[in-house]
This record gives sequence, structure tokens and C-alpha cells, in this order.
Amino acid sequence: MVLISMARIVMKFGGTSVANLERIHNVARHVKREVDAGHEVAVVVSAMSGKTNELVGWVQDMPKVAGGDSPFYDAREYDAVVASGEQVTSGLLAVALQSMGVNARSWQGWQIPIKTDNAHGAARILEIDGTDIIRRMGEGQVAVVAGFQGIGPDNRIATLGRGGSDTSAVAIAAAVKADRCDIYTDVDGVYTTDPRIVPTARRLKKITFEEMLEMASLGAKVLQVRSVELAMVHKVRTFVRSSFEDPDAPGMGDLLNPPGTLICDEEEIVEQEVVTGIAYAKDEAQISLRRLADRPGVSAAIFGPLAEAHINVDMIVQNISEDGSRTDMTFTVPYGDVQKALRILEDNKEKIGFDVAQNESGLCKVSVIGIGMRSHAGVAAHAFKALAEKGINIKAITTSEIKISILIDGAYSELAVRTLHSAYGLDKS
Amino acid sequence: MVLISMARIVMKFGGTSVANLERIHNVARHVKREVDAGHEVAVVVSAMSGKTNELVGWVQDMPKVAGGDSPFYDAREYDAVVASGEQVTSGLLAVALQSMGVNARSWQGWQIPIKTDNAHGAARILEIDGTDIIRRMGEGQVAVVAGFQGIGPDNRIATLGRGGSDTSAVAIAAAVKADRCDIYTDVDGVYTTDPRIVPTARRLKKITFEEMLEMASLGAKVLQVRSVELAMVHKVRTFVRSSFEDPDAPGMGDLLNPPGTLICDEEEIVEQEVVTGIAYAKDEAQISLRRLADRPGVSAAIFGPLAEAHINVDMIVQNISEDGSRTDMTFTVPYGDVQKALRILEDNKEKIGFDVAQNESGLCKVSVIGIGMRSHAGVAAHAFKALAEKGINIKAITTSEIKISILIDGAYSELAVRTLHSAYGLDKS
Repeated sequence: MVLISMARIVMKFGGTSVANLERIHNVARHVKREVDAGHEVAVVVSAMSGKTNELVGWVQDMPKVAGGDSPFYDAREYDAVVASGEQVTSGLLAVALQSMGVNARSWQGWQIPIKTDNAHGAARILEIDGTDIIRRMGEGQVAVVAGFQGIGPDNRIATLGRGGSDTSAVAIAAAVKADRCDIYTDVDGVYTTDPRIVPTARRLKKITFEEMLEMASLGAKVLQVRSVELAMVHKVRTFVRSSFEDPDAPGMGDLLNPPGTLICDEEEIVEQEVVTGIAYAKDEAQISLRRLADRPGVSAAIFGPLAEAHINVDMIVQNISEDGSRTDMTFTVPYGDVQKALRILEDNKEKIGFDVAQNESGLCKVSVIGIGMRSHAGVAAHAFKALAEKGINIKAITTSEIKISILIDGAYSELAVRTLHSAYGLDKS
Repeated sequence: MVLISMARIVMKFGGTSVANLERIHNVARHVKREVDAGHEVAVVVSAMSGKTNELVGWVQDMPKVAGGDSPFYDAREYDAVVASGEQVTSGLLAVALQSMGVNARSWQGWQIPIKTDNAHGAARILEIDGTDIIRRMGEGQVAVVAGFQGIGPDNRIATLGRGGSDTSAVAIAAAVKADRCDIYTDVDGVYTTDPRIVPTARRLKKITFEEMLEMASLGAKVLQVRSVELAMVHKVRTFVRSSFEDPDAPGMGDLLNPPGTLICDEEEIVEQEVVTGIAYAKDEAQISLRRLADRPGVSAAIFGPLAEAHINVDMIVQNISEDGSRTDMTFTVPYGDVQKALRILEDNKEKIGFDVAQNESGLCKVSVIGIGMRSHAGVAAHAFKALAEKGINIKAITTSEIKISILIDGAYSELAVRTLHSAYGLDKS
């Protein structure tokens, strides 16, 4: 066994963790703990909680106040305004660290630089030059990086979209070849399901990237989906842990097994459970197209215009038609997009060729997730049986290699989550 | 006479002018007026009023909250935090302008770039590359520039110190060779004296750079001293005018004679008055060194250590000693610095060689300013006579080519200002 004593660690703190000067001091204590242990550290920070909303609100309201005809605004100006929130916290954390005797400096996205594409407001990171940061970390200086932002090819600030600081952290970790990326948040790890619904939910020691991706996509709001994708691609070992615990409590500085949940590669998980967790997404709505022309290209005719309107279509179920000419097609969209989707479908009714579009709201999608189900049969049947025993009607089913998603009436969502959580033996003993 | 129809104008708006979205909209209306008239426009903005104080407060409090031994903070981090205020307003004003159909974009100091020296927190502008902005203004795009900031040789944000946005505006005006630099503020021009004390004070149509420099140095807080110096050196014709008037009121768009006060070169002022204005500075304190050794180098021994401690020594009066060995020396310092100055003098007592240091607070310095006094005799005597008639005792006098400063008891300050204002015929008829 090799004893590792020095590591390179990226630490990320979200908005509630830096909400005021006292909390920023607390964050600085977490950082100092790792520095004192001899590690090289880069820290990524979000804006103080509430600050981003305030800035976004100003940008959105400005066109109305200015009496313009259009509610739209220039995303490049949005980025300049909104990125200021992270700029403030990065500077304040650097000051806090320096006051505690820790060598530190702030870095804005454009200074490193974190190069992004030109999709202002929802930019993707293209390239990070880690040279300067790596050199300075080697000299014992903590890099305090403003999250959520980079610089576009137009030499202007580009933000990564909501939750983008998670993505910043994982991307920095990949760029500096960090041993670990710790995402400090207001929960102490990833749970088998939402503990507010199922009090017996267990905190997971480890979860694979693939499973976390499904969990994140399906409403477990611990990590931003894009950050998990990035961690998976670059194999960044990512810990989800709490920023509100005492920074100097026993075990907090454990290099190999800190408290929290490790998101990692499949190989790192020796004893893989069949099912890892139950996720759910409320406020789903279902749209059914009745007596749809069953011909090639009909799916493209339906989903092309919806995609153009940025409507996120999820579960798609198509029945095989009896006579080969007409069929039914059902799919789900977020509740807020139903009216927009129906309008688009009506506009394209001729081209698509359907009889009537029906919709139903107040639905819930419950999902069973586990990388182990790839090698186990009967996992889905087990879910159907458990739900049937509670009298919960299934409206639609979709499956992937590591996930079963079931659409049900929203009124049964908590019951369904609890039922499935028990059925797969996830309750803590 | 040449009719000029198109001009290049720099407009600057301070914190109270951009305090909220409604006021930013009002600023945008001022800008649109000039754009619609066919002018090329660059706008420089401060942070929303109150914002800079909030940010500065956070930086100052952070070391205390972090429990550090020292109250000091890294000026580079201070700059990163505090400059965010102007970043926000520049983006919001660009959005407002776009909503009103005006082509506009925001520019941060580092984007232009506005290159400064490395004196973070109080940096000086070294160089502005106006190429990009000039080209875009030529294409009809308004440049909305975040004031108060630039980028240092260390590639980090550097702020120019309090009131720095005035300096930014004048420097940009010089860099883009603007025909005019309009400083929009919460007063509608420069007055012969403070209208709160003398209701009959008149707004000046024009004032020379030299006079304005004296007015600004002596407490007329309309413009930052450094910005006036810069305007004088680069001969930037600068208007002080109100941002709170209706942007579309008659005459507001007058190219040659807009409402407000023009600060300009002496040659532009055809009929120069002998006295242009009366300025005053309260809260002055006086320190007198009694029986001081009258030998070469004694002044350096006194004022060297005070300058090192950043104490601003102002009026210095030294009497000629009767016997050539001992004399008295009197000078003024800001009230807040008295104790510090006395401590320094005591520490250097041996080296300086004086008997006793006395001090008196609650004094006021009243100044009569006018470039015309260079060619007129008896201007000072007129002041002394007017004050004597009111029974106001004069404690010290200093004069320059265009200014007479008189130190008096603070209790008489308003009376003295009113008396001198009348004595030089400055009251409006």
C-alpha cells in the first residue's frame, strides 16, 4: 500500500456556504485545514446566496423599466452583470485566508483564463490553462477562483448558466490534475433518496458517475448535471460533503475517506448494489397525440419544433398501431411548458397528422437507479409489483441500462418513493 | 464661423444618477438624446450609490471576522471586490440603451484596456488604448465604460480611488480626443460659492481649469481634483451639469452651450472676472511650534516626517525671527490628523528643535479664487477690509497667483463666505 501524504485538492463552495462574512470565514477554515495538512488547494466559489437572483432580476427588469418593446436583453451584458457576484466572494475569501495567515489570491475567469465558447449565459468551457495556478499552488499559494464564469472568444465575460460553479470546479480539477474535487454544499452527501420524504434514506459512501448522472438529471439537486458529465469524462473523483460541519471535527481532513459521498468510476466500487437510489421529479405533464399517422418522419415532425422551442421532452411512449396506419404517441414535458407545447403542436397539426392532442398535468416520474441492474434480471418487475400492491397506477414506463422511470399520478409520489425505497432494501437498518 | 454638427462626447454619470433602474433609464435618455443628434458617445458610469460603501465595508470587516491579528487587507483583493459595482451598472446601462434601440456595449477597464500603475486602491492611469472604442463609436455603437477602474501591470483589476470615475471620464475623453466631457452630477453646475450657505450664489457659465482646481482642492466637491488636473493637462473641455433635469428639456442637447458650467482653458473665457468664486474648508486645525530653531533644514525636519505619515499639511506661515535664532512656525492640518501630527512632532522634537507645540481646532479656511487677480492689485486688501468690518479676526493668510486663503475661527465661516461673496460682487442680481 502506498501512503499518500500530499494531494492536490479542488474545493467548491456554493452560495449558502458564502452567504455572509461569518460563513466565508467558516469556508476559510475548511481551506486552512487542507493547507495545514500540506495539500495544494484551489477553491471555487459561488456568489453569496440571493445575490445572483438580485443581479438576474435587475437585468430582466431593465428592459421593462426602459420602456422597450422587447423583454429581451443582450446575454453578454447579462454575463457582465451577473458574474460580478462571484468576483466579490472570490476577493473576500482571499482576504479572509490572508488574515488567517494563508497565502491566497483571487482569480477571475478571464485572468486564468477559463476559455469558453460564445454561448453567453450558458457557455461551455473549451479550455483552461492551468499552468499559472499549478505553479503558484506549488509555491504554496491557494488559488481562489470565481466560479460560474469564463471568457468567450469575443474577450467578454461568459457565464456557464445556473449551477455553473460546480462545472467550474470539476473543470479546474481536470485542468490542474487534482486528486480530488470536493463539492461543499448544504447537505452532507448523496442519499439513496430524498431524506425529507423518506427519513430512513441512507447516505451513500460511493456512487458511480453514471448513477449520479441519472440522479442529478432526475431531480436530485445536489450537483449540476453538466458537472457530473465532466467529472465522468475526465475521471475526476468528486466528493459531495457538507460545508456546515465544524471544519476541525475529527475525520474532516481525512485524505482518503472524508465524510460525504464519493462520486467515482465503477471500478472503485467493489461491492456494487443492484439499486443505488430512487429519484423523482414532480410537476411533470403528459401530452398524448391520438390517431397519429404511423409513417416515417412523424417523430421528427413532432419533436423537431418542440426542440427548437427549447421544450425538454422526456419520456416518449409510442404504441404499435393495430392496422399499421394510425397510432397513439405519449410524451412528458415540464408542467410549465404544456401550453407552449400544445400551441406548437396545433401549429404543426397538418404536417404531423394527428386527430387530437390531450394533456394531463400533476404527474410524477419516479426512477429506480442502479448500475448493478445491467447484470440483474427482474429489477423492473420488482418495482411494478411493489407499486401494484399499494394500488398505484402506472401511466408510462421507460427504461435505460441503469434506470427504470415510471410515470404516476402526482398524488402518489411520496408513497411511491417510500415503497420503492423499501422494496429494494435501501432503508437504513 | 464654422458650424459643427457632429461631435464626439464623453458623458459621465455618478452614483446617485445610477442609483436604481429608473435612474439608469433616465441616464439612458440623456445618452439617447446625444446619439439621436448624431454624436459619437462614450459613457462612463459609477457604481449605484451606496454600493461602493457596502463593498468597501465587507473588505474592511473581513479580516476582523476572520479573527486575524491585523486589520489590513490586500489592496488587490479590495480592487477585485469593489470594482464589481461599476461592472454591474455598465452592463445595466447597456441593456437599457439597447432596449431603447440604441446600439451599445459595456466595457470593463481590463477590456479596453485602461492600463494603470500597480498602486492598487489608488492607481493612476498610465495609458488608454482608444482604438477599439473609437472604431466602434464610428460605427454608431455607444461605449459604456465601467468607471473607477483599470488593469495593472500584474494583470489584475486596479481601482483609481474615491471619485475615480471622474478621472476615468476625463482620461477616456483625452484618449478618444473627445470634443467635450460632460460630468453629470446631482448639482447643475459650479457655483460662485456653496448655494446652501449663500442663496444668492450664481452658477458660473465658465471657469478656468486653474480656478476649478483651486475650488476642488478647497472643498467644492463637484469634481475630483485629479480629474481637473488631467483635464487641464490634456485640455479636455469639461462640462459640469445635472443628471436630474428632464433629458429632453429645451437646450439640453445644445452642442455649444448646454446648461451647466464649462471648465476650460483661459483663452476660451473672453471677459474674465477678477474673482470667480469663494471656497471654504471647515474642520481645519492649526499647529504652532514656538521658539523654533531658525536654521537651514528645519522645514524639512518638520514636514518630512508628516508627509511620510500621509498628513496633508496646508497653510504654512513662518515669521521672521527678531534675532535670527528663534522663530514661530504655524501650519494647518485636517482636524482628524491633529493628534497623529502632534505625536510625530514630539517624537522628532530633538531633531527639529522647538520649545512647545500648541494646537487649535475648529478653524475654517476661506478662499477667494480668481484667475483675474493676477493682473489686478488690491484684491487681497479688499478681503481683509470686508472681514474686518464684520469683526472677523484673521489667524493666518496664504496667497498664490490666483487665490487668497484666510484662516478664521470656524464659528464665523458662513458669515465670512457671505461677506466675501458680496464684497466681490458675486451675488446674483
